[in-house]
Amino acid sequence: MGNTFGHLFRVTTFGESHGGGVGVVVDGCPPRLELSEADIQKELDRRRPGQSRLTTPRQESDRCEILSGVFEGKTLGTPIAILVRNKDTRPEDYAEMAQVYRPSHADATYDGKYGIRNWQGGGRSSARETIGRVAAGAIARKILAQVAGTEIIAYVKRVKDIEAVVDPDTVAAAAVEANIMRCPDASTAEKMIALVDEVRRQANSIGGVIECVVRNVPVGLGSPVFDKLEADLAKGVMSLPASKGFEIGSGFAGTLLTGQEHNDEFYTDEQGRIRTRTNRSGGVQGGISNGENIILRVAFKPTATIGQAQKTVNQAGEETILAAKGRHDPCVLPRAVPMVEAMVALVLCDHLLRDHAQCHLLF
Amino acid sequence: MGNTFGHLFRVTTFGESHGGGVGVVVDGCPPRLELSEADIQKELDRRRPGQSRLTTPRQESDRCEILSGVFEGKTLGTPIAILVRNKDTRPEDYAEMAQVYRPSHADATYDGKYGIRNWQGGGRSSARETIGRVAAGAIARKILAQVAGTEIIAYVKRVKDIEAVVDPDTVAAAAVEANIMRCPDASTAEKMIALVDEVRRQANSIGGVIECVVRNVPVGLGSPVFDKLEADLAKGVMSLPASKGFEIGSGFAGTLLTGQEHNDEFYTDEQGRIRTRTNRSGGVQGGISNGENIILRVAFKPTATIGQAQKTVNQAGEETILAAKGRHDPCVLPRAVPMVEAMVALVLCDHLLRDHAQCHLLF
Amino acid sequence: MGNTFGHLFRVTTFGESHGGGVGVVVDGCPPRLELSEADIQKELDRRRPGQSRLTTPRQESDRCEILSGVFEGKTLGTPIAILVRNKDTRPEDYAEMAQVYRPSHADATYDGKYGIRNWQGGGRSSARETIGRVAAGAIARKILAQVAGTEIIAYVKRVKDIEAVVDPDTVAAAAVEANIMRCPDASTAEKMIALVDEVRRQANSIGGVIECVVRNVPVGLGSPVFDKLEADLAKGVMSLPASKGFEIGSGFAGTLLTGQEHNDEFYTDEQGRIRTRTNRSGGVQGGISNGENIILRVAFKPTATIGQAQKTVNQAGEETILAAKGRHDPCVLPRAVPMVEAMVALVLCDHLLRDHAQCHLLF
Amino acid sequence: MGNTFGHLFRVTTFGESHGGGVGVVVDGCPPRLELSEADIQKELDRRRPGQSRLTTPRQESDRCEILSGVFEGKTLGTPIAILVRNKDTRPEDYAEMAQVYRPSHADATYDGKYGIRNWQGGGRSSARETIGRVAAGAIARKILAQVAGTEIIAYVKRVKDIEAVVDPDTVAAAAVEANIMRCPDASTAEKMIALVDEVRRQANSIGGVIECVVRNVPVGLGSPVFDKLEADLAKGVMSLPASKGFEIGSGFAGTLLTGQEHNDEFYTDEQGRIRTRTNRSGGVQGGISNGENIILRVAFKPTATIGQAQKTVNQAGEETILAAKGRHDPCVLPRAVPMVEAMVALVLCDHLLRDHAQCHLLF
Repeated sequence: MGNTFGHLFRVTTFGESHGGGVGVVVDGCPPRLELSEADIQKELDRRRPGQSRLTTPRQESDRCEILSGVFEGKTLGTPIAILVRNKDTRPEDYAEMAQVYRPSHADATYDGKYGIRNWQGGGRSSARETIGRVAAGAIARKILAQVAGTEIIAYVKRVKDIEAVVDPDTVAAAAVEANIMRCPDASTAEKMIALVDEVRRQANSIGGVIECVVRNVPVGLGSPVFDKLEADLAKGVMSLPASKGFEIGSGFAGTLLTGQEHNDEFYTDEQGRIRTRTNRSGGVQGGISNGENIILRVAFKPTATIGQAQKTVNQAGEETILAAKGRHDPCVLPRAVPMVEAMVALVLCDHLLRDHAQCHLLF
Repeated sequence: MGNTFGHLFRVTTFGESHGGGVGVVVDGCPPRLELSEADIQKELDRRRPGQSRLTTPRQESDRCEILSGVFEGKTLGTPIAILVRNKDTRPEDYAEMAQVYRPSHADATYDGKYGIRNWQGGGRSSARETIGRVAAGAIARKILAQVAGTEIIAYVKRVKDIEAVVDPDTVAAAAVEANIMRCPDASTAEKMIALVDEVRRQANSIGGVIECVVRNVPVGLGSPVFDKLEADLAKGVMSLPASKGFEIGSGFAGTLLTGQEHNDEFYTDEQGRIRTRTNRSGGVQGGISNGENIILRVAFKPTATIGQAQKTVNQAGEETILAAKGRHDPCVLPRAVPMVEAMVALVLCDHLLRDHAQCHLLF
Repeated sequence: MGNTFGHLFRVTTFGESHGGGVGVVVDGCPPRLELSEADIQKELDRRRPGQSRLTTPRQESDRCEILSGVFEGKTLGTPIAILVRNKDTRPEDYAEMAQVYRPSHADATYDGKYGIRNWQGGGRSSARETIGRVAAGAIARKILAQVAGTEIIAYVKRVKDIEAVVDPDTVAAAAVEANIMRCPDASTAEKMIALVDEVRRQANSIGGVIECVVRNVPVGLGSPVFDKLEADLAKGVMSLPASKGFEIGSGFAGTLLTGQEHNDEFYTDEQGRIRTRTNRSGGVQGGISNGENIILRVAFKPTATIGQAQKTVNQAGEETILAAKGRHDPCVLPRAVPMVEAMVALVLCDHLLRDHAQCHLLF
Repeated sequence: MGNTFGHLFRVTTFGESHGGGVGVVVDGCPPRLELSEADIQKELDRRRPGQSRLTTPRQESDRCEILSGVFEGKTLGTPIAILVRNKDTRPEDYAEMAQVYRPSHADATYDGKYGIRNWQGGGRSSARETIGRVAAGAIARKILAQVAGTEIIAYVKRVKDIEAVVDPDTVAAAAVEANIMRCPDASTAEKMIALVDEVRRQANSIGGVIECVVRNVPVGLGSPVFDKLEADLAKGVMSLPASKGFEIGSGFAGTLLTGQEHNDEFYTDEQGRIRTRTNRSGGVQGGISNGENIILRVAFKPTATIGQAQKTVNQAGEETILAAKGRHDPCVLPRAVPMVEAMVALVLCDHLLRDHAQCHLLF
């Protein structure tokens, strides 16, 4: 359990960072959607290591193969299985980790839970696990775009204490991809890059905040009570490695306002649609999308794996010193951008199907 | 869909604020657990309105009846259905809301999604819906306490900009219950209460932050990838009405540290258990509990329903003015404390059963 | 677990035969469906005991109350909770069963699994549990009828070795309800009734076969592999008390034919629809409905509870003699007819929503 | 949806008969179970085509590769992905089927539901889909054997009207594998084989009945109401291609007995265990295993694909004649034996984990 996400658009991922490969099975995809390996590869390329000096120097081409579910360029309605083979693995880099627990990593808890662990490259806890999510997210995005013109754009909002100024209502995907930091505020991006360079030289790491906006959201996604849209979005992004916090709309800052200040006044726009003048709700009210832009933020802690020597213990419980030798990212944020987008796409696509089933059958 | 929570310890809630009643069905509860209506009533009394001047003056006794699943004081292993009848309803208070959308409330989105809405008292979007959660949470807590001595304590950490000083490792449940704010820092609680009183007089509302600590957590709860413990905790609490943000351990503030500063060093304690010296992880690493205290925070926005006049629209899209007449809470936080505890209990109990099934069958 | 059925149209039942009551929560029902207690009561009345001399003389009026999910005569899209209070309970009739296991009943296995059991009237294993199913089935039928004019008719096909002649393509619901056996072949029904009368006098019991036909089935319900329509139908009806066998279309008899004899030849009818000349497939091919009538049969064993003395053991494992004193049905078949219809309705309605979500979103 | 089976031991299959391959992801497997490709290959070899003259002459070696979830010979507790590449595909054999619907096959219903179909070799409706099930079943069997010594043996009980005499309580797996029919009654097996040979020469096909016995079943598997053990077993085997009927214990024949004749008398055996003298219940009472042998039977229709000319229609609805050219099985039963065993293993293993979670946590 725990490796399947979604109720109707169901995604099951598999794979460790070392071994046969990683991948995903997508069940419940509507039939006759045009889909090619290029559609998926495009997103995987944004996620893969080695794409810039900001990320780990591991060279993984991460070429995907669609094993099933697509025929003559269209989805069949049957499970879409996608496989990415593992390459450029250097298990010897990780030999020490077979015994020694990396602080704030998953090594000790995997051993505590399962009594066994693939110590090569982090195994299932490796960021490589997110390949399946990003591949599935690429499909979800196509469906959302086709049905409602929905657009999902995430970007680096803050690195440590360097914060960008971005207007979520107008930011363009091209601006995000315009620099290796994936921060659409170009001058701030340069400062962030300089900071990451410095941190890498120190064999240290840093974190930050990713913001994500969704535009052209259909009204009515999400359902009351447990599967509120913000609850499922929170689960989706909080399941990403290294995430420590989530907020939607006004978030934590909203708690500093009064109700009179915080409430989003309704009005009717020129097309006769009911709109809100402000968007402190972040596009969701009562757990259901109201058609305004969804805006959310995710906190990512500094990468746990660092080159500096750290005190820790080994499997036998003996205290020891670890200086990680594996190749790792000093800052996960640029690569986390497509991961956040993927999780948001998976949540929205699943709720799109759910809403269609329940609320668009009789009327 | 959307009204069931949990995979093995499964909770399904039902009910609107007006109508026959609200309640819950708990499926998957272990058999032979001692359980009485008093066990459940105790938690419901912490949640009910009218318990202090800080909360809505609605007088709802919220007496629960166990309809099934318990026999001679013990659980049967079959579904436990719990019903709380609706009383003290004044639909006339809400007549205006049949037509007029309360800003930042669920009225407009329910209409947008379902094309119909029980406008009396908020219907399913009423905080009354959480009765079922709190009732089920009372059962989950008993199981956790019995299996592992697990203790779940939430409290008001911040109201607007007034922040309490609380040590999560030592805070006692009695200190939380010692004042009507449910803030264990007594002198700060008084300031918070004064602020709520002032806000109520202004027919306004305020929000804040609830912190929750879990002590004596079994090692190994949570599973990698989608059902990481923090992901399910995030979903659980973000499904509560008025929640806008979630963080675990260091949360958003942790993004200001470097990896070297943030990582939790391992050591071996006197009992030979592997421990961490700090707990920025908040008790979870790699999605799995490590036995340290779980610490999380939830942001609650100021209550949407306020007495002040607000601009809004009606169902026909015509602009109008609304000054809510219903009885409402100027600050949901004191009553949200048992709700947060309930959701945390549900998540942990479900993962306790899941871990037991997968990891304690063969060995 | 085990008390929820369906993926989108989700039904959770609760309740023991003695105690507060039995009922159901239906989640996922489309909004704005007209629904009243009368719609549900109609089906419950066909299921209730005491409706004729063929069934147990327990007088249970089984009045249902809709607790939630319906407002001003229409469904809200939120959970529909339905409660039927327990009445006319005589726990003293069952006192002996607290200790002594009824042969071929659930007493011993409940004790073996749970270590506890509500021995009054069979508790959760009582046929009373099916009230929730029949109530939910009444809603499912309304949806199917509204969307596709789908008609579900079950009837008693065989009692012990007395078999009726019924044409499933033309049989009318009124003919089924025309006699207390619910066998639309009137003259055979009389023979069946005479046999049941005789068996009751002998304090014995008998079983038989129920056949069910579904007409006006939408094409495309069911999905390949595990959730084939016949697989979900089999699960649905095999979850009814006392069922021992299931077959669809040609069933077991079809194994005596060759492929050349068994295959259903395709043709195109006057409306241009692709049809089959024969229907050995029973309306399902490759797990998916083809629009022909669905025809299935369910074997029900003779009721386990009989008045005759039987050898058995008690909880301590000591051998003893039991002659059941409780009021029971000599033949469950007439009352099982609405139960079979309910389970078939639940399966079809769930797949109708599923098909709508996956296959009618993009095109 | 529809491609995942099980609640805790969750199996998701993927793949069409032509394309990249077929396979399975198993989530929820207990960690530290010894598992190798040989364990899985052994069962796949019993399922593969070309193993004898009774089956289709397609030569598919069906070599499996474990892609993930196993490390140094042991399961990790993370998803086990298994891939079998497609080989020896001859799409040209199926070119006609791109247009023409094979009677009683899934061609027309797939088109009706999805509006698209991989017509090569049946695509997802091919028996090749069962590779994933059999692979997963091999893992489930290992767990059951390790925990309880559970043994699952299926065999051909009847081919058309030729019925074997087999004692399910004593039949040995070796006797099943002793002939190419997988019928442990050797002399009857010869007659069956002769019949299949004759049918193949006529380009026709036949069906029959497979019986399955499970020995050393833990008491307490299954749960009341919807997930009764017999209901999940029925779903499991009725999801296999070509199955048309299911029965457990006395099944349809049991309806010819009275309650007094049918009931299984309890007694206490020498080990002090509560047992039944007869086993008309088939090892399940009240939906829960009682420790007696589980005995079930599955009806398989004659294979739909036959070489004889048949009337049918094409996609355009025009009437035509089809004589299938593809290589197919004249009788699926010998190959269906491991498929039935696999589905039974998946159901029992899932319920073993479920029972462990709910009923063996507190006590």
